[in-house]
Amino acid sequence: MENLLVIQSGGPTAVINSSLAGVIKGGFSHPDKIEKVYGGLNGIEGVLEERLVSLELFKNPEALRLLKQTPSSYLGSCRKKLPAIGEDDALYEKIFDIFEKYNIGYVACIGGNDSMDTTDKLSKFAKEFGKSVRVVGIPKTVDNDLVLTDHTPGYGSAAKFVANCMRQIALDTDVYQMPSVVVLEAMGRNAGWLTAAAALANDESCTGTDIVCLPERSIDKADFLAKVEEVSKTKKTIMIAVSEGIRDKDGNYIKENAKRGGDAHDRFGHAALGGAGKTVEAWISAELGFKSRSIELSTLQRCYSAGASLCDVEEAFSAGFEGVGFAAEGNTGIMAGFVRASDAPYKMEVKPLPVCEIANKEKAVPDDMITADGFGMTQKFLDYALPLIGGEPELIYKNGLLQFAPTIK
Amino acid sequence: MENLLVIQSGGPTAVINSSLAGVIKGGFSHPDKIEKVYGGLNGIEGVLEERLVSLELFKNPEALRLLKQTPSSYLGSCRKKLPAIGEDDALYEKIFDIFEKYNIGYVACIGGNDSMDTTDKLSKFAKEFGKSVRVVGIPKTVDNDLVLTDHTPGYGSAAKFVANCMRQIALDTDVYQMPSVVVLEAMGRNAGWLTAAAALANDESCTGTDIVCLPERSIDKADFLAKVEEVSKTKKTIMIAVSEGIRDKDGNYIKENAKRGGDAHDRFGHAALGGAGKTVEAWISAELGFKSRSIELSTLQRCYSAGASLCDVEEAFSAGFEGVGFAAEGNTGIMAGFVRASDAPYKMEVKPLPVCEIANKEKAVPDDMITADGFGMTQKFLDYALPLIGGEPELIYKNGLLQFAPTIK
Repeated sequence: MENLLVIQSGGPTAVINSSLAGVIKGGFSHPDKIEKVYGGLNGIEGVLEERLVSLELFKNPEALRLLKQTPSSYLGSCRKKLPAIGEDDALYEKIFDIFEKYNIGYVACIGGNDSMDTTDKLSKFAKEFGKSVRVVGIPKTVDNDLVLTDHTPGYGSAAKFVANCMRQIALDTDVYQMPSVVVLEAMGRNAGWLTAAAALANDESCTGTDIVCLPERSIDKADFLAKVEEVSKTKKTIMIAVSEGIRDKDGNYIKENAKRGGDAHDRFGHAALGGAGKTVEAWISAELGFKSRSIELSTLQRCYSAGASLCDVEEAFSAGFEGVGFAAEGNTGIMAGFVRASDAPYKMEVKPLPVCEIANKEKAVPDDMITADGFGMTQKFLDYALPLIGGEPELIYKNGLLQFAPTIK
Repeated sequence: MENLLVIQSGGPTAVINSSLAGVIKGGFSHPDKIEKVYGGLNGIEGVLEERLVSLELFKNPEALRLLKQTPSSYLGSCRKKLPAIGEDDALYEKIFDIFEKYNIGYVACIGGNDSMDTTDKLSKFAKEFGKSVRVVGIPKTVDNDLVLTDHTPGYGSAAKFVANCMRQIALDTDVYQMPSVVVLEAMGRNAGWLTAAAALANDESCTGTDIVCLPERSIDKADFLAKVEEVSKTKKTIMIAVSEGIRDKDGNYIKENAKRGGDAHDRFGHAALGGAGKTVEAWISAELGFKSRSIELSTLQRCYSAGASLCDVEEAFSAGFEGVGFAAEGNTGIMAGFVRASDAPYKMEVKPLPVCEIANKEKAVPDDMITADGFGMTQKFLDYALPLIGGEPELIYKNGLLQFAPTIK
């Protein structure tokens, strides 16, 4: 009998704790192999500081249910990147000593790209040095940019929030008689998946989105303004979604006060972005004279659990639950990914995918999902993404406030 | 038999259409007095252009139900202010000629402060010139700043959105080990009700809000920073809500690049604000060195129907429904306002209140609802506001998208 350790890292999502709930439930479902379920606080950083807590309290079904609707990383997060294997073996030895001390035989890392890197390195070190620890990755990222998997838990809920915001803001904006433009800036450095989700906002009761601008296409100011002008001929209210990472043809970010080479970078070397929406808003009012307003969804798009997609919540849970099952079967160095069995009816299967092929890669929106002019999404994208935002979870509120799991930090 | 005309004006809310649904249902409920229900598009502006549409389609209960969950002003809005009576009688004559042409005997104006001014003027003109038209006001405003009424439809849903955003953002922000500050900027020029709602975010599962800054109290930078520093001694994540209209002791707005006397103004003479959150964010990072982020909820706080309060949706409906009843009974120059019968259990009654005492006045948050240091809300406020955000409406979604009433514009 061994124990299971689960950690979370990277930016939070609305459903990362649903995956945690799945992992915990998975841990409790293999009584022949797994005795206790521990949570490591603040990812691998907390493990190194031996901050492990028992997750026993989630044997209570009510607590587990609340965990599923609690946004953000319940166990806390970190952005520590492990060194390459061979660079600092002492660090790995320290981690595995702590694993041994707590009799950890199974580790589940819930996170995005960088967490899959952690999963990859821990599992490789374990294999190389004969440590009997199986390490599995449970995907999460609102960016939907992990390769191999059909999509990533967290994306569906963020996409749903973006689409429903576009619809509601469109109605709000359409009340006056004068033409008006809204530019909504969504997250996405290099992959435009979340911005693309704005295109889901259109149905017979509302045209929520007219134009999308993704980082997958360089933005030419003149072409863009011509497109806005074209839409303005038939529509009074123009709704535009732009990704924070849009660039001009020379690869420079389109942002307020953009300085070449002067951008701040986070600890993983990603450029810190912001301001694409405001820049585009200024283009429109200055060059076309339309009343224009930009809105940054900011952290809300990734943490607004109250608007989550049921599909996403349940899939996030499954990824966690099945991921533990894969580990219990002896798998290591894998990520519990999604393989689409069919579009209609929508059918998704959770499979163990090789994490070494996933870590440190990014999946952009493919060409055939973007319209020829670069300002819209094709039917292929809509067919792909629409099922992911479907269904509304039954949520527990008290006095009008969305309820969360009891804290243990 | 006469007809009923309903118009909407001012900024939209999440439940202004629930009031419209109530007015329409009220119109259909007096078959002895009211024959048809017309909507005037874009408020009094549209009436002057004779853009009246039949609202017959809402005899369908499904359509009426969808209208209740449709955000923004379904009939469109305007910000036209009617001239003082005596200044331009021809304009009033034109309006009443159109009323006569359509056999309008009852008018319901759904809106805020400025719409109550319209209600007041139309009813006064009717009385003065012997026109048999009863004009009633149906309150709406997320600002909650109408006098006489206990509170205003639209406030509860916006307050609920603000409170739940604070909670979800608090969890999102609390994931790393370093101290971090979030400044959320909420709407409110002169009345801090919506910012105050952030204080509802605290319960046993989450401390969503630590500090609020309302326009009712001038903000001293040193005092404010001392308060932030005090909170930082016991809390890693500090959540602050500031009103867009906060001012320093000299009455100058606290905003980015604030220029005395240089503010833009809208057509009602209100200053166009923005940037209080960013300014306060900059104070905190520059003076205290904390990681700080500001978030503007922008239009989302007033249009996010998907997070509405059931109490608010139903009360908004009642105000519309009862308002028509008051008109049918012969009342004119009144607003369908709320009188609180009891706090616990929460009990509200709709009463006809004299609109001439409401128009062009603003209700600030009273002193006894603000803590002595000015940075928090008292129990009296919590008792007042908590019932208003209670309950979640059953919403109709299709493919993950909140559904709206079919358009008629």
